[in-house]
Amino acid sequence: MTITPDDAPSPGVTAARGFRASGVVAGLKASGRPDLAIVVNDGPLEVGAAVFTSNRVVGAPVTWSREVVKDGVVSAVVLNSGGANVATGPEGFADSHRTAEQVAEALGRSAADVVVCSTGLIGVRLASEKLFAGIAPAVEALSPEGGPAAAEAIMTTDTVPKTAHVTVTDAAGTWTVGGMAKGAGMLAPALATMLAVVTTDAVVDAAQADAALRAATRTTFDRVDSDGCMSTSDTVTLMASGASGARPEPEAFAAAVREVCARLARQLVADAEGASHDVAVRVLGASDEDAAVAVARAVTRSNLVKAAIFGNDPNWGRIIAQVGTVPEDVAPFDPANIDVTINGVQVCRASTLGEDPTLLDLAASREVRIEIDLHAGDAEATVWTNDLTHAYVHENSAYST
Amino acid sequence: MTITPDDAPSPGVTAARGFRASGVVAGLKASGRPDLAIVVNDGPLEVGAAVFTSNRVVGAPVTWSREVVKDGVVSAVVLNSGGANVATGPEGFADSHRTAEQVAEALGRSAADVVVCSTGLIGVRLASEKLFAGIAPAVEALSPEGGPAAAEAIMTTDTVPKTAHVTVTDAAGTWTVGGMAKGAGMLAPALATMLAVVTTDAVVDAAQADAALRAATRTTFDRVDSDGCMSTSDTVTLMASGASGARPEPEAFAAAVREVCARLARQLVADAEGASHDVAVRVLGASDEDAAVAVARAVTRSNLVKAAIFGNDPNWGRIIAQVGTVPEDVAPFDPANIDVTINGVQVCRASTLGEDPTLLDLAASREVRIEIDLHAGDAEATVWTNDLTHAYVHENSAYST
Repeated sequence: MTITPDDAPSPGVTAARGFRASGVVAGLKASGRPDLAIVVNDGPLEVGAAVFTSNRVVGAPVTWSREVVKDGVVSAVVLNSGGANVATGPEGFADSHRTAEQVAEALGRSAADVVVCSTGLIGVRLASEKLFAGIAPAVEALSPEGGPAAAEAIMTTDTVPKTAHVTVTDAAGTWTVGGMAKGAGMLAPALATMLAVVTTDAVVDAAQADAALRAATRTTFDRVDSDGCMSTSDTVTLMASGASGARPEPEAFAAAVREVCARLARQLVADAEGASHDVAVRVLGASDEDAAVAVARAVTRSNLVKAAIFGNDPNWGRIIAQVGTVPEDVAPFDPANIDVTINGVQVCRASTLGEDPTLLDLAASREVRIEIDLHAGDAEATVWTNDLTHAYVHENSAYST
Repeated sequence: MTITPDDAPSPGVTAARGFRASGVVAGLKASGRPDLAIVVNDGPLEVGAAVFTSNRVVGAPVTWSREVVKDGVVSAVVLNSGGANVATGPEGFADSHRTAEQVAEALGRSAADVVVCSTGLIGVRLASEKLFAGIAPAVEALSPEGGPAAAEAIMTTDTVPKTAHVTVTDAAGTWTVGGMAKGAGMLAPALATMLAVVTTDAVVDAAQADAALRAATRTTFDRVDSDGCMSTSDTVTLMASGASGARPEPEAFAAAVREVCARLARQLVADAEGASHDVAVRVLGASDEDAAVAVARAVTRSNLVKAAIFGNDPNWGRIIAQVGTVPEDVAPFDPANIDVTINGVQVCRASTLGEDPTLLDLAASREVRIEIDLHAGDAEATVWTNDLTHAYVHENSAYST
């Protein structure tokens, strides 16, 4: 498998054949920026899968879209920024339903095959008439070159659109997986949503698409834990058009989907609001992967650790104190035998002071790599987070609902 | 049971008969402030119990003191600020052991009955010679009026000493429970420790003391969750002298211990570093108490909720989004039927907008009361936290290890 490097801007969801996309101004955002995107699958296949937030309080779009993907068929995804349509009651669900119907009608598809995603403030009704009025222009604007416009229209507090793709040439032929994402990172007021759409022209069935997407999100988007707050709207949708005619091996397909999700997730971390550092917490020597993830999450969720990194302080004491909060039945390890290495300097050895922490200059790089060796097995996992900064507090306190 | 109001300063650990205490300058703190305290039980009983942090990474003093309390006998507690003695290896344990020996020798007691508590930076050895040299003056200074001096000597980033007591006159006679505490709240660099000493002149046995202390801490200190970071050193010790001759009913004794712990815990929240609001999250209508606590903790640990409160923003959307993160097997409830009341205004009803949030002026009071009704049973619990402020980030980032 050869993955095309993506140091150039990517067409995102229209990198794969068989897709058109658009992004237009519906007027939902006060700023007048694009706020409505459509991605449509022109086939020949209409395979779809999606992964949703595990929050029990979910937006109307999630309630709607969960039903849509159950049969493994997705024709299109419509996404709006400027309103999350969460905590809006039965009227909010009617808004999502009607959005799907109007998109389906304009495209000549079934509403039951249209995934709906919304992002923005919680608890306020969508400006639905503006949204509905924007659908016709958005369908009109659909284009095989529309990926970048769609990626821009789903931005909320993002400063840059996030797109990625990989093209693989292997025994199956040449096929592509592309995608776009928005949000997450350090979160603006109630704008916690992470939305992503991944497309492929590979020939895959619904079960294969679902398995590849679940495996990919589990180790990419699910391991970006910028502030521990789980959105009510997170949705990652995969559509397969089959337009390449290539039938990749399941492992190759899953790897490509994972690569695209990993690149998008990394972009989310890099654009996290108010952050001055991207922090990779890698836990090694764990008894199993779940143990490694549990320990990594305990560290990435520590305000004390995150504030120390903002202060460019390699405070290993706070790190092992967080490691120690994980129960033994979740992650067996010897609390007296933890090593912590920060950007290559082993500042803590066997749970006591190791190399001189003043050797480190955390201010010199945006990326901080924390490696925690539990000496309890061979499993490992990495979870990404950001530091806790004044800008984070400002962004999340200075706005009213 | 009559509880004496404590709107006046309390003698704390020397409110009960049979105790002497002191606080002196040993020179561990660069500031030259008092940093060494001793509380000694003059009997006739020497009953003791203690509750320790559940962190698996613990300081040497915790390792030592866990052994001390196993037989239910505690003669004295020695506490130092200016160094936590955590992550200091076998040498650190030797420091704690020798501290207990020297205190025991000066008092004519057994080292095996001396609880040791240390608070300050993690990962550096104590200035043990200074500490040892301070023990003789601290023993010299012991006095039945020494409670306030001891409370002052255990302060780290606290701005005020914390003391409380209740005196009960009932069928058993007149008896007192008093106490002192330090720390917690919004935490300074690695100074996360919450230490408390509770004393009583009631006649109780070790099992009764242990049961009362565990029950009290479970619903007081354990429900102060200022920033979700669990210390490596938290220790709450109870000593009973029996000097009153009164043998209270177990329920009355437990209630008095709980009241003292509750008052101390409330003082910790009120003195939390960098906080501008004290926030009580009360969960009602839960299926059981554990469910109520789990939901309350999910809310108190949300940086988005805490930053919103700093911004005086009654952001109920962020609150129900946090409620929704609690798994159904932990807390069964209908995600579409959550009510949220903030300072008496029901801003969210049945998981949608209720009364107008602009009716609230959170800036007008330090205390914010969030009530979340799950409509799933009769149980309830309250967890206290603080808001997430610029001052918190500053305090926790602007210092080096």
